Amino acid sequence: MTNSTELARLIDHTLLKPEATQEQVRQLCAEAATHHFASVCINPVYVPLAAQQLHGTDVAVCTVVGFPLGATLPQVKAYETTQAIMAGAREIDMVINVGALKSGLTNVVRDDITAVVQAAHAQKATVKVIIEAALLTDDEKRTACELAKAAHADYVKTSTGFGPGGATVADVALMRQTVGPDMGVKAAGGIRSLADAQAMIAAGATRLGASAGVKIMSEAEQENV
Amino acid sequence: MTNSTELARLIDHTLLKPEATQEQVRQLCAEAATHHFASVCINPVYVPLAAQQLHGTDVAVCTVVGFPLGATLPQVKAYETTQAIMAGAREIDMVINVGALKSGLTNVVRDDITAVVQAAHAQKATVKVIIEAALLTDDEKRTACELAKAAHADYVKTSTGFGPGGATVADVALMRQTVGPDMGVKAAGGIRSLADAQAMIAAGATRLGASAGVKIMSEAEQENV
Repeated sequence: MTNSTELARLIDHTLLKPEATQEQVRQLCAEAATHHFASVCINPVYVPLAAQQLHGTDVAVCTVVGFPLGATLPQVKAYETTQAIMAGAREIDMVINVGALKSGLTNVVRDDITAVVQAAHAQKATVKVIIEAALLTDDEKRTACELAKAAHADYVKTSTGFGPGGATVADVALMRQTVGPDMGVKAAGGIRSLADAQAMIAAGATRLGASAGVKIMSEAEQENV
Repeated sequence: MTNSTELARLIDHTLLKPEATQEQVRQLCAEAATHHFASVCINPVYVPLAAQQLHGTDVAVCTVVGFPLGATLPQVKAYETTQAIMAGAREIDMVINVGALKSGLTNVVRDDITAVVQAAHAQKATVKVIIEAALLTDDEKRTACELAKAAHADYVKTSTGFGPGGATVADVALMRQTVGPDMGVKAAGGIRSLADAQAMIAAGATRLGASAGVKIMSEAEQENV
């Protein structure tokens, strides 16, 4: 069982809607600092603001790269990574080239991940690789996880939250089994309650992306977990 | 009335699904060449392939920047534009920073567009500015169009096709009224039939983004338009 303090440290407090305002991002940051979440996960345009708001707290700034389609050029993903880190991001959630995976071009998928990992690790930032599981067969999910691991990424992540489906317990378990015990697994998309969060952790998730973090913590405190 | 040959020259034949394969992009290009569409509109990863497939035809390669959320850093949008053009793109459909518009930061929105326009026009490429109308109030739509015009973009465009709604006749009319007679207006999202296409043109659209281009042309040929 994960207690409430430990649970908070697993949550990436997330706001990725394109219409999000500065004011909403400031509120997100304040909530993340209060609850000691792992990070705020926001779009690149808000990295400078979030870094400023969270200076001196224990909350990291996480942002997204090649998001949410994963279909930008590899050199653009790498550049976007470097620019986001220079602006204050410490965690990079990148989307794989799904079309290349579907076309059987595993080298293209791997090199794309590697370029982001190298750009991020050069600045000691963490990389999570979003496989957008709802678009993939189980074999493709395994391949994507193996490629992320081979590219020395830090986490695999289920979903963008913009695809046809979010995190499932079955996908988290498959991803954990594929990458082994030492790599991170982030469940994201549709995690709206404490029960959802606990199910993902039981299946092997070591990070949770959610916009409902405050509600989840409120449930956890009520239940004295 | 627009005849069938003229109609084809208004269509950006579009495939932006993240899971699109190389084979599907090859087919899209072949269809575009057959029907003499204005362009194929594909994700940046497929620009090199489309440029190769369409070499020697009258079909341009169009791609998307900061797509579909518009929430990437301005310098990344400009870099993505340059890289896409170097890879063979001649038309750039960029998404505005919707969150900045919603936050009242019109200078931020304008500078973001300007950076892309300057990068594109330096290489004689065309820029369409996607305002994602379904997220905006009518006042915000007008402001976005005025900013795009002030930044010397070539077109304003209604929608990404990934937002909460696509092109509407009312939005196209509002955009045409706002930008005046000389700037381009592209309607995109949900244009599935000849009747849809004709309604958008009547409202002021001078380009249509559609994945149903082949079906629309088949209807046009049947009706001898």
